Amino acid sequence: MHWGVFSVPSYRAVWFWNYWKNGNKDITNFMKQNYRPGFTYADFAADFKTEFYDPKRWASILQASGAKYVVLVSKHHEGFTNWPSNYSWNWNSYDTGPHRDLVGELATAVRETTNLRFGLYHSLYEWFNLLYLKDKENNFTTQNFVKMKTMPELYELVNRYKPEVIWSDGDWEASDSYWMSKEFIAWLYNDSPVKDTVVTNDRWGRGDMCHHGGYLTCSDRYNPKTLQKRKFENPMTIDKNHWGFRREANIEDFYTSRELISTFAQTISCGGNMLMNVGPTSYGTIQPVYEERLLQFRKWMKINEEAIYSSKPWTTQQDNATNAWYTMKKNDRDERLCHFTRLA
Amino acid sequence: MHWGVFSVPSYRAVWFWNYWKNGNKDITNFMKQNYRPGFTYADFAADFKTEFYDPKRWASILQASGAKYVVLVSKHHEGFTNWPSNYSWNWNSYDTGPHRDLVGELATAVRETTNLRFGLYHSLYEWFNLLYLKDKENNFTTQNFVKMKTMPELYELVNRYKPEVIWSDGDWEASDSYWMSKEFIAWLYNDSPVKDTVVTNDRWGRGDMCHHGGYLTCSDRYNPKTLQKRKFENPMTIDKNHWGFRREANIEDFYTSRELISTFAQTISCGGNMLMNVGPTSYGTIQPVYEERLLQFRKWMKINEEAIYSSKPWTTQQDNATNAWYTMKKNDRDERLCHFTRLA
Amino acid sequence: MHWGVFSVPSYRAVWFWNYWKNGNKDITNFMKQNYRPGFTYADFAADFKTEFYDPKRWASILQASGAKYVVLVSKHHEGFTNWPSNYSWNWNSYDTGPHRDLVGELATAVRETTNLRFGLYHSLYEWFNLLYLKDKENNFTTQNFVKMKTMPELYELVNRYKPEVIWSDGDWEASDSYWMSKEFIAWLYNDSPVKDTVVTNDRWGRGDMCHHGGYLTCSDRYNPKTLQKRKFENPMTIDKNHWGFRREANIEDFYTSRELISTFAQTISCGGNMLMNVGPTSYGTIQPVYEERLLQFRKWMKINEEAIYSSKPWTTQQDNATNAWYTMKKNDRDERLCHFTRLA
Amino acid sequence: MHWGVFSVPSYRAVWFWNYWKNGNKDITNFMKQNYRPGFTYADFAADFKTEFYDPKRWASILQASGAKYVVLVSKHHEGFTNWPSNYSWNWNSYDTGPHRDLVGELATAVRETTNLRFGLYHSLYEWFNLLYLKDKENNFTTQNFVKMKTMPELYELVNRYKPEVIWSDGDWEASDSYWMSKEFIAWLYNDSPVKDTVVTNDRWGRGDMCHHGGYLTCSDRYNPKTLQKRKFENPMTIDKNHWGFRREANIEDFYTSRELISTFAQTISCGGNMLMNVGPTSYGTIQPVYEERLLQFRKWMKINEEAIYSSKPWTTQQDNATNAWYTMKKNDRDERLCHFTRLA
Repeated sequence: MHWGVFSVPSYRAVWFWNYWKNGNKDITNFMKQNYRPGFTYADFAADFKTEFYDPKRWASILQASGAKYVVLVSKHHEGFTNWPSNYSWNWNSYDTGPHRDLVGELATAVRETTNLRFGLYHSLYEWFNLLYLKDKENNFTTQNFVKMKTMPELYELVNRYKPEVIWSDGDWEASDSYWMSKEFIAWLYNDSPVKDTVVTNDRWGRGDMCHHGGYLTCSDRYNPKTLQKRKFENPMTIDKNHWGFRREANIEDFYTSRELISTFAQTISCGGNMLMNVGPTSYGTIQPVYEERLLQFRKWMKINEEAIYSSKPWTTQQDNATNAWYTMKKNDRDERLCHFTRLA
Repeated sequence: MHWGVFSVPSYRAVWFWNYWKNGNKDITNFMKQNYRPGFTYADFAADFKTEFYDPKRWASILQASGAKYVVLVSKHHEGFTNWPSNYSWNWNSYDTGPHRDLVGELATAVRETTNLRFGLYHSLYEWFNLLYLKDKENNFTTQNFVKMKTMPELYELVNRYKPEVIWSDGDWEASDSYWMSKEFIAWLYNDSPVKDTVVTNDRWGRGDMCHHGGYLTCSDRYNPKTLQKRKFENPMTIDKNHWGFRREANIEDFYTSRELISTFAQTISCGGNMLMNVGPTSYGTIQPVYEERLLQFRKWMKINEEAIYSSKPWTTQQDNATNAWYTMKKNDRDERLCHFTRLA
Repeated sequence: MHWGVFSVPSYRAVWFWNYWKNGNKDITNFMKQNYRPGFTYADFAADFKTEFYDPKRWASILQASGAKYVVLVSKHHEGFTNWPSNYSWNWNSYDTGPHRDLVGELATAVRETTNLRFGLYHSLYEWFNLLYLKDKENNFTTQNFVKMKTMPELYELVNRYKPEVIWSDGDWEASDSYWMSKEFIAWLYNDSPVKDTVVTNDRWGRGDMCHHGGYLTCSDRYNPKTLQKRKFENPMTIDKNHWGFRREANIEDFYTSRELISTFAQTISCGGNMLMNVGPTSYGTIQPVYEERLLQFRKWMKINEEAIYSSKPWTTQQDNATNAWYTMKKNDRDERLCHFTRLA
Repeated sequence: MHWGVFSVPSYRAVWFWNYWKNGNKDITNFMKQNYRPGFTYADFAADFKTEFYDPKRWASILQASGAKYVVLVSKHHEGFTNWPSNYSWNWNSYDTGPHRDLVGELATAVRETTNLRFGLYHSLYEWFNLLYLKDKENNFTTQNFVKMKTMPELYELVNRYKPEVIWSDGDWEASDSYWMSKEFIAWLYNDSPVKDTVVTNDRWGRGDMCHHGGYLTCSDRYNPKTLQKRKFENPMTIDKNHWGFRREANIEDFYTSRELISTFAQTISCGGNMLMNVGPTSYGTIQPVYEERLLQFRKWMKINEEAIYSSKPWTTQQDNATNAWYTMKKNDRDERLCHFTRLA
């Protein structure tokens, strides 16, 4: 679930700020047409009000969708933390607009009212954080940003909210030694409060994706097309091309439930999980079209549930099976075709 | 299509203002939680920005839905005119927020790019117009409001935008002689620029509804259950209970396409038209869930089109058939059951 | 006291709107630099909050200044009424921004806590009222605006707030017969609730100024330079060139107290009153520099009070002396030079 | 000059945020009356627009006042930097509201158009910075805040803007060793780009004030009442009790020019400088009443200039005279009474 200050303009992309600063014509024009000159991206934060945010309602939608886990953006590349971080003063959801702990409230609701696992997305880098840009200018020989901002926040996140999925992102500009990822992962698996249940992905440093870390994501909308020995995830989004709520979206921009199910079948047949993205609104709701897709998905799932979830661990898996909750029976796996034909 | 200042709070109802002034708890609480004390309903107008309003896009959605006519709210009971009225100074879509002629732009787009008829909804009364309240206090023995505001506006609307449907509303507190409706309708059918093609409904004065005027509406969501001799319309809405865009709406608040088609079948089988309402957003879009229903509707329609539209005028009709575009072949009519069973 | 929606931009002039629509470069540029495209003048109303408006505080400043009467703008050429008018729906201080009866609150405070007379400024015309523009287009052969808007409001004002000065303005484009001024004045002096005490000025129709009506104003900043037989008033403003609060004003834009007193002496020596304008802020205060001028004025007045106010009516005056509270003893008058030399 | 996010509410105090969080009734009530629930202090930043900020105009007012140096708040206890700091991401004047380098623009204007020295106020502590609060909780045995935020910023300030006065503040909760002040001052005097001309004050750590550092300030509105051997400064403000622009201020809240001059005489007779505070508006102007006081001051100064500025260094001074521009002739000094009687 992609939620943040970008949900306020809710136009084009969650990369709104980045595109704007890089001169994207649509966004430049959008700002010119709709805001006073000199209006800054940070000024949007005051309008991130989340006045209809009802975490129990979200949890109930998630539960009804048949999902097994949820991954909320805790901080995207904009650097705005959806929780009251000690390290992101006045650029977080408590000191500005929402005046709420968006992460904490969902964590509580999900745990109290559903049987989903609660996970968090976290971006290592922040496009325009001057500390980061300075490190980058120094060819990542300095680590002020890592030590002062991104790692303290990530530890804080795990300690405070105990997420069972850490969905790392924004790693690609620097190596995992710059990011101090290995130290973090070691702590995560050995000493953190979620050491016994947590899983994580593979975006922990340039070159790691699709090779190291926990389960593999490889790319957004990853479709390996052959049965994989290692657990992977296909992170995709219901809006065909975008991750955040877009006010200008038309119905043809969204996958139909048929298309979603087809993608799902393809993903699981190759041994992966599907992470299906939803972009909530700045006022705190899940738009009906998203809700509909989630429920339609569930309908189909109900019929096929057993085939999908009643399964045993793969014998061929290399990594520690205890970290995974999604595993399949060997027999089922063998009988499965990786390439599904499109559902009739 | 219900669009107006109520689209800014876009909470609960298009009757937002009325409910608020009458102490509705939800709305009072909503205002208390989200706005400064002393914030007025008129203050919402500045945020009615319609920045994404693309009348050609709307027209194309309408066309794609298979609709034969569209009826846009030109002015609801709040009195805000969606066109630059000469009689609603600084309380219209040109002098405030949108700074656009919402009515005129859609009229042009619909005419240039579709084959739909263009109609306008118009409320005779205005809840809180002091001129109206004064007339009411005088037991409608004075007509300052009618003469200074509502009738000048209605003539202006017809002369300027040449709507082929006048969907009158808000008549119920006073007689048609207070409203001067007969004079208006006489002019409309005999002298107005749309005299040869216009149709209108039956809400022109207390007691008229379901009896006088053009086609009958009788009530919102009108279902006569028996074949009618006189043309009628079933004005209903895709959001089961509401006419405007509501940010807090959940997917279960919307009719499924199956339910919509069932209602449609029932309506036409009894000899009526169905007017299916959509509530656009304050930023000028038709929310995807509405768009989806319209398109799903069309899909079903495509198959059944001939049965529905290839039909001849009723022999029994009293009123002037030239004013109607929807008529049926006599034979078809007889073969039709009024009470459809629910679609399998 | 010039107060209205123009107090929100509080830039350049109370004619802000007019200048803007007529392409004034400064104002066009100001809007372009500071507001979104499409922002309208009416949109300013939501920010006219008057949150610090304390009418008792205003009354005490006025009292402390030694003034004998106060004239508040009830409605300027923008047409926005500073009271909840029945004829200016949603374009008044109660339905929008302030959500208060600005006129009524000051009337009460002035009467309860001071011995000043309470007066009201009222503009007959409204630049952009479409009813007015239509009448004008018809060479003032129609009177819809007069009958529907400006005269009903003026009667309402007098009946509701009982002002003892009616400071009429905005008359110059049409004759007093268009404005129906004679009927109003006849009513005012013969039948109105203030018939025994009210005075008015001379701006009641093209050609009237400096000739007809009550006391003469002739022009803004009127200085006849010779002793006048008829009572007159010099309406001027502490900000040398402007009537409203201007955020960009510098101290050199304001008259010094010495200059004000010199003007005052000149005015009264020729037999006139001085009406010294103050422009309150949109948040409801009288800026300190204005307050200071008023108090400095009082200091000087205290010394010269008797010479100015202890005086008897002029023998030569033609008009009804009972309407005036400011008159002089014959002897004093003769001894006075109209042209004062500048104070040493 | 106290300028910052507190200039947006511009109510009561520059300590607005602190008082609010500590339950001050006036401020709590002000927020309740004028803002939506959940509105945060950081949300004010979007309205800090400084649209009329003309640093050349400010410089010309300062010059006209006869001042010898100016000290601008670069960052107050709220932690908002009036320059684009590398260490205060999205909580500075470039990333939010003004979208300008307020400090840099004034530095340039003052240097290009006046002969004043340019100085900067800087608060060591930040009330609600979580890094600071954490250090404090640790009894200042940790220094994360000092190392990550306040010291990097102070070095950045000096290197970038080369201020010749560093007016330190906010030191009182911790020792100068926590603040690392000695290292900073050593650098400042020995290696910084302003080492040859800079002066600083005495607020560098608990217990330092009035004892260590550069010139002494001792307390706000410091009046030693006897001739001092060491240079000191009397930091006071034209608004008798407040440092920022207050919208609710009345004229009696401001010192008269007579009172200011009396204070000035008293200060210089005891061997001090006077730092006379002005609170600019959020829209970027110096309110006329402040401007007037500055100019009235100058008028008096013109007459007494020589006695005040044409003077030679004190023989008894211990500290390096080259750092000071304000010094007196020995003879003048001896002839001066420290306790002035109030000016006739």
